[in-house]
Amino acid sequence: SNMMKVAVVGGEGIGPEVTAQSQRVLNWFAVKRGVPMTLREAQYGIIPYLATGKVMPPDTVEAMEEADAILWGATGGPETKEVPAAARKAGSLLGLRSKYDLYANLRPIVAHPALSDSAPLKASVLTGVDFVIIRELTSGIYFGEPRGIETLADGQRRGFNTEQYTTDQIRRVVRAAFELARTRRNKVCSVDKANVLETSVVWREEVIALHAAEFSDVELTHMYVDNAAMQIVREPRQFDVMVTGNIFGDILSDCAAMASGSLGMLPSASLGPVDRFGRRKALYEPVHGSAPDIAGRGIANPLGSILSVAMMLRMTMNRPEDADLLEKAVASALSGGARTADIAEAGAKRLSTQEMGDAVLNAL
Amino acid sequence: SNMMKVAVVGGEGIGPEVTAQSQRVLNWFAVKRGVPMTLREAQYGIIPYLATGKVMPPDTVEAMEEADAILWGATGGPETKEVPAAARKAGSLLGLRSKYDLYANLRPIVAHPALSDSAPLKASVLTGVDFVIIRELTSGIYFGEPRGIETLADGQRRGFNTEQYTTDQIRRVVRAAFELARTRRNKVCSVDKANVLETSVVWREEVIALHAAEFSDVELTHMYVDNAAMQIVREPRQFDVMVTGNIFGDILSDCAAMASGSLGMLPSASLGPVDRFGRRKALYEPVHGSAPDIAGRGIANPLGSILSVAMMLRMTMNRPEDADLLEKAVASALSGGARTADIAEAGAKRLSTQEMGDAVLNAL
Ligand SMILES: CC(C)[C@H](C(=O)O)[C@@H](O)C(=O)O
Ligand SMILES: CC(C)[C@H](C(=O)O)[C@@H](O)C(=O)O
Repeated sequence: SNMMKVAVVGGEGIGPEVTAQSQRVLNWFAVKRGVPMTLREAQYGIIPYLATGKVMPPDTVEAMEEADAILWGATGGPETKEVPAAARKAGSLLGLRSKYDLYANLRPIVAHPALSDSAPLKASVLTGVDFVIIRELTSGIYFGEPRGIETLADGQRRGFNTEQYTTDQIRRVVRAAFELARTRRNKVCSVDKANVLETSVVWREEVIALHAAEFSDVELTHMYVDNAAMQIVREPRQFDVMVTGNIFGDILSDCAAMASGSLGMLPSASLGPVDRFGRRKALYEPVHGSAPDIAGRGIANPLGSILSVAMMLRMTMNRPEDADLLEKAVASALSGGARTADIAEAGAKRLSTQEMGDAVLNAL
Repeated sequence: SNMMKVAVVGGEGIGPEVTAQSQRVLNWFAVKRGVPMTLREAQYGIIPYLATGKVMPPDTVEAMEEADAILWGATGGPETKEVPAAARKAGSLLGLRSKYDLYANLRPIVAHPALSDSAPLKASVLTGVDFVIIRELTSGIYFGEPRGIETLADGQRRGFNTEQYTTDQIRRVVRAAFELARTRRNKVCSVDKANVLETSVVWREEVIALHAAEFSDVELTHMYVDNAAMQIVREPRQFDVMVTGNIFGDILSDCAAMASGSLGMLPSASLGPVDRFGRRKALYEPVHGSAPDIAGRGIANPLGSILSVAMMLRMTMNRPEDADLLEKAVASALSGGARTADIAEAGAKRLSTQEMGDAVLNAL
């Protein structure tokens, strides 16, 4: 059947608050637009840990196992210190990415003209910004071995990690970038540090080889990561699709958040390999974290999570018109003046998380 | 004697052009302010390579060996492809940093109000920005072993590098940060990725231990590197001294460049250990690179190099009043309207590299 299964996992901090709103939006598309889907809510983090001793209880594992798409909230925060490292590790976000081999992390950066007053960048720099960072998510220094902490003969300690990429790990994520570029402005910028790191030398050579073999119609450029961090702030409009490794993508996408106005606005999709039935597990989550400082106050911006639903409609549900509809509703809520605290100018009315959900539903 | 020896090494690309101007400025301080110094010019890069087969000929090695301070221009660019990797490596910038153990790289980020029109950040965000990034420069993933490229059994290639820090490597650079903070607003922000990397776990623990033992009067905060990249753009005023490892510092300082208006404005100092005579080798260089696209045209901004001379006056020559004098002359040239192309608004008159040198000398 084409009935898609969605696991809804709010998690910790502001995760459950923002996810409650994107779940309302998902329901709207199921009911009003007949998008075929089943939703299954599941718990993650400190709450199930206190009740069951597990951050990821068996019911949650099962919900995610059977799901086509996971709508993920957030994880982390001070109270999670109560969870011993071993219990935490057994069901971490990094563990999930690895378990489902979610190697391609897409982070679209779109500037909303309505938000330029509260953004740190000038409107003249923001206008027209529309690019996607594709971050490799299951390899690199996040997962490289050996790693650890050792005590040296002289009593000093030494921490060490391994950055690494293989041909296949590079090619599959770069392929995703070239394919996405073909549906957009046909430009890929590959970011590395090939003037210093052997890992990046291999990265760059594999990008060049794949481009020559299969994607020579796509315009390809290369940029060092330090320069990319600067160019994202200086002239973000120059980018269409940017592809890079795990740690560079982590840093650059937060840097790029400011080119969209606010971190709270940013959605993401993490895609696994296509299986022999043509299915592809995907996890959708806002780029922001658990924001413990504002958790429980009902003031978080749900738009990063709601825009992640738009990505789900486009990529898992194969409903591009519905995705467009939702993105337009968000834009129209914003241009109608709807603002949560993180995107409000001084003195402007601030909506609660729930009211921002209402504003989007009203615009639908 | 207190006569300080300076090696002037313009290098490649725009390096010689900008260094010619900062050398004029140095001469002015020697002659007009009686700062005791001797200058020795030396060649580096493609020019001596073509003449002698060495990028770093013996005369240059000797000049740097005897120097208290090296005034460095830039290195790199397309024509350097003519230099075989082995010859290049024998005398590289990374090799120099390592040879003289220049572990503490100071990169001040100061927003010049006169430049806010050409900056991508809003004036309201830039006003009052004044912080220093201290980047560890001789360890981390730049120098960690093992590193290399291998061919796997299945024919794939794999690139790998090692990120690593030991207790001593962390403590000496963090000590420099705490000491600098005491002469400023007394705040240190240490940047790591301790939620993912063991290297960062050790980094953070050593920072906390050193702080508790010797610097508990300094306000200390910790930030993840992804968040730091965002905060530098969102609210750069919050920082006083930021300290971080080699690759994170590389990325964050380019990102921070935009909080000063232009990369061309930024100076740096790289300091080695203090020897038993109380001497400390230092290398001063603009943060920008060799800029091959504009090399030879006489239009590069020399202020990054000239402001590096101010750092030299303060740190090697121990002449804080002269350093202030030079920084004020730069500010006054800027507020008088002096602009090279990189910091000029559309339609404004653009000075050549030499004319910008004149503007600073006139303001002295
Ligand atoms: C929470 C953390 C482990 C994570 C990462 O570094 O990948 C986060 O920063 C992200 O970008 O999703
Ligand atoms: C040229 C390059 C090796 C160098 C670095 O990465 O350190 C440069 O980017 C810098 O910041 O000085």
